[in-house]
Amino acid sequence: MDQKPIPDIVVGRLPIYLRALQRMAQEGRHVTSSQEMSEHLGISAAQIRKDLSQFGEFGKQGTGYNIEYLVHQLRQILKVNRVWEIAVVGAGDIGSAVARSQGFADRGFRVTMIFDNDPEKIGTSVGSFVVQDFAQLAEVIQKTAIQVAMIAVPAVHAQEVADELVKSGVKAILNYAPIHINVPEGVHIQHTDPVTHLQRMTYYLE
Amino acid sequence: MDQKPIPDIVVGRLPIYLRALQRMAQEGRHVTSSQEMSEHLGISAAQIRKDLSQFGEFGKQGTGYNIEYLVHQLRQILKVNRVWEIAVVGAGDIGSAVARSQGFADRGFRVTMIFDNDPEKIGTSVGSFVVQDFAQLAEVIQKTAIQVAMIAVPAVHAQEVADELVKSGVKAILNYAPIHINVPEGVHIQHTDPVTHLQRMTYYLE
Repeated sequence: MDQKPIPDIVVGRLPIYLRALQRMAQEGRHVTSSQEMSEHLGISAAQIRKDLSQFGEFGKQGTGYNIEYLVHQLRQILKVNRVWEIAVVGAGDIGSAVARSQGFADRGFRVTMIFDNDPEKIGTSVGSFVVQDFAQLAEVIQKTAIQVAMIAVPAVHAQEVADELVKSGVKAILNYAPIHINVPEGVHIQHTDPVTHLQRMTYYLE
Repeated sequence: MDQKPIPDIVVGRLPIYLRALQRMAQEGRHVTSSQEMSEHLGISAAQIRKDLSQFGEFGKQGTGYNIEYLVHQLRQILKVNRVWEIAVVGAGDIGSAVARSQGFADRGFRVTMIFDNDPEKIGTSVGSFVVQDFAQLAEVIQKTAIQVAMIAVPAVHAQEVADELVKSGVKAILNYAPIHINVPEGVHIQHTDPVTHLQRMTYYLE
């Protein structure tokens, strides 16, 4: 099928659909509907049908979606029908927790290295990794051709770390530092900050 | 000023503005502009002006925004001119990392307790906390009137934990488990899952 550009807002919902569908598959389910997905996800059934229809005709009127087929297609579309290696920068609490967590591999990602610039952390173990010297980052990343990284350093250092990652060839960065990072065109960044989520909710509290 | 309902999408951007403004304040800055904020945040200056104007006249044409005043107003609007106590459920890697991190208090939040149902974890220390028995959660939360919680348990247990939190009076939940959670009307939930962020980016990679 010939793909026209998909709005990023739609791309952003596809991982949510994939996650729900993979869970259904794990439960041994074979068929679902936009209505059932809607009840699980709090996204309207019409929106789900419209989003999925952009990528082809997945569901048949009246028979619902084949879960296995839809998982296969979404993994292909999101390019997670492979495993992307991830470099983590920052061996503090969050970086270490992420590096140790094993829940990413069946969803397309595996942490394979962790860096820090603190001499007291370099050479120590985090899960199954030895913390590497940030000074070696460019060399290691260029050698391994890693394209995905996570930043888990204090806010004040996050931009310089991002610059170094971009210079080394990284194309996708997930930033845990509580600061906005700028990246050049062609590099993708996502920010994750629990406090912005929390503040979005306290607005509504009494 | 009399507030009409603000679209949630706007509410969601206010913490981003507040974070940037607080950083400028820390740097000793006093005045900024929608243009400068736009360069920092990758949100258009027109959007920033429109968002902020919903809450009153913060900036004067030609003189820019008074940072201290805007921080004060945004903290008040988001109700983070106080400190909300947080209960964390799940003393695994992520829950422990969140409980130990001290970076929330000046942004309106402080973790004050952590729960788990694993007998091997109950009674052990995580940072300055002793892990409490999940069986005691309802009682403790009702006594302390905590309204904000974080869920950091395996996906399979996340919904039941959320149900228990809601029953105990929690009104805002940040969910780290990689599964969608349903909550009743009047309760607010935000999901944070690094893999959905990563998959949103790999879509664009070669």
